[in-house]
Amino acid sequence: MEFSERQKKIIQIVKENEPITGSEIAAKLGLSKPTLRSDLALLTMTEVLTARQKVGYIYAGKASEPILQNHLYECRVEDLMIAPVFITSEDTLKNAVTELFIRDVGSLYVINEEKELIGILSRKDLLRASLNNTDDHIPVAMIMTRMPNIVTITKEKSVLEAGDLIMSREIDSLPVVEAANPLHVIGKVSKTNIMNYFIQEGKKVEG
Amino acid sequence: MEFSERQKKIIQIVKENEPITGSEIAAKLGLSKPTLRSDLALLTMTEVLTARQKVGYIYAGKASEPILQNHLYECRVEDLMIAPVFITSEDTLKNAVTELFIRDVGSLYVINEEKELIGILSRKDLLRASLNNTDDHIPVAMIMTRMPNIVTITKEKSVLEAGDLIMSREIDSLPVVEAANPLHVIGKVSKTNIMNYFIQEGKKVEG
Repeated sequence: MEFSERQKKIIQIVKENEPITGSEIAAKLGLSKPTLRSDLALLTMTEVLTARQKVGYIYAGKASEPILQNHLYECRVEDLMIAPVFITSEDTLKNAVTELFIRDVGSLYVINEEKELIGILSRKDLLRASLNNTDDHIPVAMIMTRMPNIVTITKEKSVLEAGDLIMSREIDSLPVVEAANPLHVIGKVSKTNIMNYFIQEGKKVEG
Repeated sequence: MEFSERQKKIIQIVKENEPITGSEIAAKLGLSKPTLRSDLALLTMTEVLTARQKVGYIYAGKASEPILQNHLYECRVEDLMIAPVFITSEDTLKNAVTELFIRDVGSLYVINEEKELIGILSRKDLLRASLNNTDDHIPVAMIMTRMPNIVTITKEKSVLEAGDLIMSREIDSLPVVEAANPLHVIGKVSKTNIMNYFIQEGKKVEG
């Protein structure tokens, strides 16, 4: 939602002169009071201004441009996704845990010689193996979550669709795959990416 | 932001009759066109309606009540927090990993005999111990993250403040502590809670 030039001027006048009546705002703009009626209605409904009876308008909003929540949720997966860390199915459990720490990630994607996605290894998978006292020289293929039990997404989907899948399937990340070749991974979108996106957008408004 | 009864009626009329001109809407309501000007301005600016020149108004919005983003971020920690899983510093590494799986959580909070918070154990901490081939009968006190290196929050803070701390400190959760007794944990707010909150709010709007 973007305010008109006149609405921006009204906000500025109220910021500098609060409390100020509608008639006083109209006089400062050289306009009639009825002309401003819809602007003032919009600015109070969006909570940028507060109208106090017998006092006038005061500036109430933190944001000069309220962002509508539906826009927030339209951000696409391709604008959030990061590069995944890949390992091969012959890598050992020990390699995998080491890689997870060196790269400081929450999960690893397992690919075959054709670079096709065949599995995912999360911290939880690796910890389960350690709980079971698994020999840490076994290949990761023995403990990974395998296709078709992996949930993937494509890059044109929204942050809402990605987050909804992560929430409902109780997973940490989604491999982003090509629509034409759903075994070819082009990115990763994680719980961390999604939470950080919402927080960063919120800081823009608060800032 | 809540629409007035008249604005709700206008939305209903447009939904049922689109495309429809401003004069036609006014006639259906038995009101003059100027009376509706501010309502129509508000409904188009919030993208519930779209005004097409020489055609009229059409219904465009997914949400009948646009929610302003700043309200989304005002949700308080106490409305999001969940019950933490506690263990004691004498519990073994093996106990801790087992507890993490049985309770299906991402972190455990370590308390002393006075029930004061003395440490946190994350999946990452437990995995690091397993990487180092640590004997799994050692007490968790040997591997936990300790006070004062633990970031906490109080229940009246906002989801934005909680998420910002989790993002900037690169952690998975925050113990929620009493303001008067910052070692007494009353809840937990995690990356999962926060992401799920934003996704659930988004689904309300899309729904």
